[in-house]
Amino acid sequence: MGLRTPEQFLEGLRDGREVYYRGERVNSVPDHEELGVAARHAAIDFHLADDPKYRGMATRQQGTDLYSTYYHVPENAGDLQARSKLIETATALGATLVILVKEIGTDALFALQRVLARNKETEGLQRVRAFYRACREKDLALAVAQTDPKGDRSKRPCEQTDPDLYLRVVEKRSNGIVVRGAKVHTSCAPYVDEVIVLPSRSMAQGDEAWSVAFAVPVATPGLRLYASDFLHGADPFTRPISSRHKMIETLTVFDNVFVPWERVFFQGRQDLASAAALTFVEFHRFTAVSYKLPLLDALVGAAIAVARANGIERAGHVRDKLTWLGGYAETVRGLVELAAQRCGTEEGIAFPHVFTTNLAKWTFAREFHKALETVQDLAGGLLATGPSGADWESAEVRPVLDKYLVGAWPADRRMAILNLVGELTTRLYGGYQAVLAIHAEGSVEAEKLAMLRAYDPSRALGLAMRLAGLETS
Amino acid sequence: MGLRTPEQFLEGLRDGREVYYRGERVNSVPDHEELGVAARHAAIDFHLADDPKYRGMATRQQGTDLYSTYYHVPENAGDLQARSKLIETATALGATLVILVKEIGTDALFALQRVLARNKETEGLQRVRAFYRACREKDLALAVAQTDPKGDRSKRPCEQTDPDLYLRVVEKRSNGIVVRGAKVHTSCAPYVDEVIVLPSRSMAQGDEAWSVAFAVPVATPGLRLYASDFLHGADPFTRPISSRHKMIETLTVFDNVFVPWERVFFQGRQDLASAAALTFVEFHRFTAVSYKLPLLDALVGAAIAVARANGIERAGHVRDKLTWLGGYAETVRGLVELAAQRCGTEEGIAFPHVFTTNLAKWTFAREFHKALETVQDLAGGLLATGPSGADWESAEVRPVLDKYLVGAWPADRRMAILNLVGELTTRLYGGYQAVLAIHAEGSVEAEKLAMLRAYDPSRALGLAMRLAGLETS
Amino acid sequence: MGLRTPEQFLEGLRDGREVYYRGERVNSVPDHEELGVAARHAAIDFHLADDPKYRGMATRQQGTDLYSTYYHVPENAGDLQARSKLIETATALGATLVILVKEIGTDALFALQRVLARNKETEGLQRVRAFYRACREKDLALAVAQTDPKGDRSKRPCEQTDPDLYLRVVEKRSNGIVVRGAKVHTSCAPYVDEVIVLPSRSMAQGDEAWSVAFAVPVATPGLRLYASDFLHGADPFTRPISSRHKMIETLTVFDNVFVPWERVFFQGRQDLASAAALTFVEFHRFTAVSYKLPLLDALVGAAIAVARANGIERAGHVRDKLTWLGGYAETVRGLVELAAQRCGTEEGIAFPHVFTTNLAKWTFAREFHKALETVQDLAGGLLATGPSGADWESAEVRPVLDKYLVGAWPADRRMAILNLVGELTTRLYGGYQAVLAIHAEGSVEAEKLAMLRAYDPSRALGLAMRLAGLETS
Amino acid sequence: MGLRTPEQFLEGLRDGREVYYRGERVNSVPDHEELGVAARHAAIDFHLADDPKYRGMATRQQGTDLYSTYYHVPENAGDLQARSKLIETATALGATLVILVKEIGTDALFALQRVLARNKETEGLQRVRAFYRACREKDLALAVAQTDPKGDRSKRPCEQTDPDLYLRVVEKRSNGIVVRGAKVHTSCAPYVDEVIVLPSRSMAQGDEAWSVAFAVPVATPGLRLYASDFLHGADPFTRPISSRHKMIETLTVFDNVFVPWERVFFQGRQDLASAAALTFVEFHRFTAVSYKLPLLDALVGAAIAVARANGIERAGHVRDKLTWLGGYAETVRGLVELAAQRCGTEEGIAFPHVFTTNLAKWTFAREFHKALETVQDLAGGLLATGPSGADWESAEVRPVLDKYLVGAWPADRRMAILNLVGELTTRLYGGYQAVLAIHAEGSVEAEKLAMLRAYDPSRALGLAMRLAGLETS
Repeated sequence: MGLRTPEQFLEGLRDGREVYYRGERVNSVPDHEELGVAARHAAIDFHLADDPKYRGMATRQQGTDLYSTYYHVPENAGDLQARSKLIETATALGATLVILVKEIGTDALFALQRVLARNKETEGLQRVRAFYRACREKDLALAVAQTDPKGDRSKRPCEQTDPDLYLRVVEKRSNGIVVRGAKVHTSCAPYVDEVIVLPSRSMAQGDEAWSVAFAVPVATPGLRLYASDFLHGADPFTRPISSRHKMIETLTVFDNVFVPWERVFFQGRQDLASAAALTFVEFHRFTAVSYKLPLLDALVGAAIAVARANGIERAGHVRDKLTWLGGYAETVRGLVELAAQRCGTEEGIAFPHVFTTNLAKWTFAREFHKALETVQDLAGGLLATGPSGADWESAEVRPVLDKYLVGAWPADRRMAILNLVGELTTRLYGGYQAVLAIHAEGSVEAEKLAMLRAYDPSRALGLAMRLAGLETS
Repeated sequence: MGLRTPEQFLEGLRDGREVYYRGERVNSVPDHEELGVAARHAAIDFHLADDPKYRGMATRQQGTDLYSTYYHVPENAGDLQARSKLIETATALGATLVILVKEIGTDALFALQRVLARNKETEGLQRVRAFYRACREKDLALAVAQTDPKGDRSKRPCEQTDPDLYLRVVEKRSNGIVVRGAKVHTSCAPYVDEVIVLPSRSMAQGDEAWSVAFAVPVATPGLRLYASDFLHGADPFTRPISSRHKMIETLTVFDNVFVPWERVFFQGRQDLASAAALTFVEFHRFTAVSYKLPLLDALVGAAIAVARANGIERAGHVRDKLTWLGGYAETVRGLVELAAQRCGTEEGIAFPHVFTTNLAKWTFAREFHKALETVQDLAGGLLATGPSGADWESAEVRPVLDKYLVGAWPADRRMAILNLVGELTTRLYGGYQAVLAIHAEGSVEAEKLAMLRAYDPSRALGLAMRLAGLETS
Repeated sequence: MGLRTPEQFLEGLRDGREVYYRGERVNSVPDHEELGVAARHAAIDFHLADDPKYRGMATRQQGTDLYSTYYHVPENAGDLQARSKLIETATALGATLVILVKEIGTDALFALQRVLARNKETEGLQRVRAFYRACREKDLALAVAQTDPKGDRSKRPCEQTDPDLYLRVVEKRSNGIVVRGAKVHTSCAPYVDEVIVLPSRSMAQGDEAWSVAFAVPVATPGLRLYASDFLHGADPFTRPISSRHKMIETLTVFDNVFVPWERVFFQGRQDLASAAALTFVEFHRFTAVSYKLPLLDALVGAAIAVARANGIERAGHVRDKLTWLGGYAETVRGLVELAAQRCGTEEGIAFPHVFTTNLAKWTFAREFHKALETVQDLAGGLLATGPSGADWESAEVRPVLDKYLVGAWPADRRMAILNLVGELTTRLYGGYQAVLAIHAEGSVEAEKLAMLRAYDPSRALGLAMRLAGLETS
Repeated sequence: MGLRTPEQFLEGLRDGREVYYRGERVNSVPDHEELGVAARHAAIDFHLADDPKYRGMATRQQGTDLYSTYYHVPENAGDLQARSKLIETATALGATLVILVKEIGTDALFALQRVLARNKETEGLQRVRAFYRACREKDLALAVAQTDPKGDRSKRPCEQTDPDLYLRVVEKRSNGIVVRGAKVHTSCAPYVDEVIVLPSRSMAQGDEAWSVAFAVPVATPGLRLYASDFLHGADPFTRPISSRHKMIETLTVFDNVFVPWERVFFQGRQDLASAAALTFVEFHRFTAVSYKLPLLDALVGAAIAVARANGIERAGHVRDKLTWLGGYAETVRGLVELAAQRCGTEEGIAFPHVFTTNLAKWTFAREFHKALETVQDLAGGLLATGPSGADWESAEVRPVLDKYLVGAWPADRRMAILNLVGELTTRLYGGYQAVLAIHAEGSVEAEKLAMLRAYDPSRALGLAMRLAGLETS
């Protein structure tokens, strides 16, 4: 055992898993035209551990164990910063697209350990720890399936007309449980080894059957993945990122899937379900803001470059827009840094500061569309009216483009940066990141709620009451 | 002569014009897989005049002449309102995509008449009027090629290294002129009859050769259109609009194109060039804000519908977002209405109120991305992780989707509205409209400049000075 | 009878009314140092009717009746526009401070007539009409007392611990009713002739005693006015507006006030109470947005002037800020214009378009603080560090100020405009207007609610559903 | 020598200094009704050093020297954090009003040392160090006079019609220089011991006479202070802060003031002038953002308290507004923390990270008015219509107020918090802080410029270029 090579990772995906893409069963994920791109993107994680340049950052040694840094349980601010830096670095190598095949899974495993230890759930804790050790030793890739389809949003799980609209336990057997239902938005599921399942909301009396957390290999009978094709297509001229890097989400269906007891972390406990949902996002939003940083850098960098390419860098309004963009990006970066520094510790596990993490995510999310607008503004109308890759390749058309699409930079350099801007802000990849900005790892509304809950009013309220001549009640 | 049928319009495009798409010469525009979609979209204009339901709005009778309302020279606020209403109606029938094959051309012809009459340019005026009458009588479709490639933005036309970076007169002959250069972002050029060429900026001493306005048929030797493929592709499930409706922009190259004198409206006059550029946008931005209205309605309507489909319509933050959206859309609509009402008149031609028109456009543009964000927010993550058309068609996959993608509405209705939102906000069509919002018909910065120039400070400044006890200087 | 002179109006205030200011009973309002300023500000209304320049706008002739335009029941858009124009003109003469001594009262009387006619309340309607005729004939000044103190905001009137926290009927007699309670924020009460009392919220079963509308003369026994001193003070150098113009709000206490039946418009009817509260603001918010226009003009004008005084008018960021300010102010103005044009009619009474009126008010309110910020930005730090009036008057200090406070304008002109800006944005008057922007005539939240309720979704929703291929449900 | 008591500090101000207030010469600053309030506010600094609770924070021991922490030259991030914490603590004790009598002076002295050491200006450096040591040993209070009156903003110092519009050297003598001119916005000058004079802008060839930095005691012949009365007045009921705490700015006139050479830090060197102006704000903006923190806390705390007092704390829109406020305040706080942590070092002196400091200040400034609006929104209209202190004291009026101004809190507690909100957002103190937010320690535009200059584009630009397949040029 120990660290796997990218090839070993890809080979492990050829296990008969049941994946559908565009209406058809996929034979082999790594060999599929689109899913293969995504799988190779995920393999960046394994390349990192293999590359002398990144090995120090991407791996940890504990005694004789050499393992992926993602699996390192954070014990202090330094560990959280190192984790954040690794996520950022890998995402930058992934051309602003997060890798996520170990990030999110370890987020879940750290959270489960905290919740079960906090509640003295010895047996569950042992199972989580055993599963964690196995994953770390085998260097596995993990997905987390959390968001339920939800059906009628105004109703709790047990009130839904179709009880399967939240994933649930339909049978308990001596050797395990049988679950049914589905999860939506499961990132990376087609090209990981294991899927960890978590509840997606707070549960109440009556929701016991839906209060369950467990893990299964992707190739488990009854587990079926319906992959979204959102980033489909591959013109490398106009899509310099998404032609080479993809992430795939699935509708993840559990059709009477059997889970042996040793992989069931808890079930029937709505208190643990609620706690697990909340505690998971404490880690996962920190992962999120860490992986947003290269996207922000790319937007700022592309804005500077396209302003130069267009020869407008010195104009007053352009400088104003660049300043705003830089200020926005650096505010997020600064808050990520602080979220690690201000970490708390529970059961020996360090976790990022909850208010600051949500503040970073909220800051990122609520200005992201303005950032897109700003970069589009600097780039110009060619974003929507420019040439295709086929034009560019055509011996007849290319000279015309070279002559007329020149700016302060020659046409080829200018088009390269314009196409990057187009991909980041206007085409599918831009739309994908825009939706992620608002909805992934918790919606903007969820972040605001978390901020309000985590805010400690004592200093501010104490000051105001004192200034008003009142006792703090 | 008189009004043409859609078929006659399409037939007229089979004239040997030189159009390139994805690196290849297009044989016949109306028969081309992608360009044909755009041409048929343009034909909506001719359908309207043919449809008893819209004929009254789409046509005008003057004596024995029956002609398209677009060609009606506005004489008063009512005419401008009728024009605006027609543009809005046609765009709504075009599924939020403007038709534009007569709107922009008549914007240019009205502007040229004003400028030449204002300057007592009798000969040029006669040429414009003759051309206008011919277009109206033959019911022609028109494009306007205005934006030059511009090269180094800090330099005027005559200062560019390559003088062709602004279109220019390279030869004067007894029977006409020869022009060379190119225009970018020319909407609809591949499927109109005539291209009107206007200067794109104010010109100064030395820019005489670049100060030229004229018209040529699309099938003129030396005129070559390089079409953008931005909206390429056609899954009607995820792209309910752009699979059926397209608009195409071109890089429009004039390679020593001969223009006979009767089609030259002016040349060599930088003062007329500057005036024509400014006066054209007085009409064209009014066209713009008129055709934006169905897009805004679609966003508001889709937001309401998707909130209902998701069952979240009563939540406080959802109501807040819907209120904002409605307020935004109705502000733009109100300002469009006022721009017509407050019109001025020059040389018998009514023109929309300049400040109000630009105010409407600026209001539209500076909040459009926030509107996209808001609708995405209400719709949810399925925008980026939902099924493809092939999934939806698959007998195996569809029941899974029907079961799990239900909300407050059944899955099929919910997915229909989600896909509309996706198309409008997240996929290529959303990106296309986002870029248009900022750059088409003048950038946001250009609109601000126009507002500042058109603002009459007398009432406000007079009041402030009186309140300060000062004389208005 | 007929129109009164300013002197007659002021004389009418010497009637023994019970007014308190800064803890002391006021002997005579028009002769009081501070309240007298407010009363004379109110008298602008009577000056207008007297001034040949404004008489045509400020008065109406009906048969032999000559009366104040404010009392003219609007029958169409033109009447509403004339009313709006009069309010705007009077407010500009009042140096951006609304007069309000007939505006708000007629808003209430028009609303009561609509509500009672709509509900076939013949007797109540007759009483309102008789009262209206008397006010019009005697040319009376009116206040409206609407907002109750409210106590615990989460409880309805009948649920309050102290039942007086909403004004209520405590006794019914053969000849009238006795009321007790109070109203807050009653504008102008100390210097009007009559106070009209309206319910401030929707009432429900159990709230009958609190569902009452009536009118009483200010000098009625038991009616006591506690005036706020917010705009107290009077340095005309630094306070060019509020040293000469004041409006006064009161806590208006009804301590077992007897109201004869002919002045009771309804009582005991929670349905009428709810309707009256809503219908009143339909008129009153239109009054509000009309009187905000001079304030906006003054801000825009002061911004232009101070930029010139400081010599920074040509700077890019200054032009940008002036454009924004002008765009903001003109959007509000345009929407006010539209609200009149789009009016509806009920029982022969024209009322402004509800959505558009609230849109105008919301637009005004949500950007007002940004407008203050923008003008402060252009003015500079002297707003907070400049000289006092005493400095300015000092023979020793003045030459120093004249020498050093020069800009692109001489010091005296520059200080005049800076002091205007200071008054409008930084000192008490600015704070007063800021609070009014958010809270007067309904809060921002109330306006949003009104917009949502008044928005007709049919066009937008119909389009979205059609584009999604769905039937509008 | 050593630390002074508050009394010693106040006594030191009775030295015949020439101060004018409201047009009159002030006899004794500490005994003056208004200036005395400001002087006693400044004395908080000396109380702190005297108070066992704060002594550890407020003083430093170096060998046998015990001195004020403000005078400690920062050597590392910890020193900067301690300085920031002290400024924050003192400002909170000052009821959100900064003390500033040592903060700004040491900002200047640290900057002068860096600039002169950087430029190997040995003699000037020795003079600065000697002056610094003397100030520290005598525990002096310092003002910094930097902003010149500027006259025509489009002209440099040497181009002004009146050369005195920038302070300048008018004569050089063997024993010193004579300076003439003025400075505006000089904070605290009437109640400090020494005034340090710095250039306010970058200077160029020809501006030598205006390129001067020096220090003089306040009681120097020819130095005259004209104090602004902006915060004049003192009702402790409605002005709980500014009735007890004031800061005073002056127009500071130098009428041929003689400065001996040992107090001249440089003169005639436009390069040093430019560097000093820039380097000073590197420290001073960090001081600024540190002292803004209690103001932000007070706004957040007052918002929470007033929402509770009004009983609206659970409403959705209220929670939303509180979340925004908290997020805003904590973003500024976080960035201040980071600015210290990321400090640089020059000549052994640590200075806060320039980009982050300006980012913090810009974040503070551009949302401050929105914060004021938000708190006003939560408080309600009583801010502008509430009772005066005299009402509150009146035995007749008070019971009425107690009865009717109750909310979820009794009237006295509710009015206390409402008056705090009023003072912070609506009355003079609110206006004062609003102007400071935009203009003090550099305008918003200046901060944006500093951000753009300090931004290191290499990471972002490098990423974008790599993603576009381009070499970083």
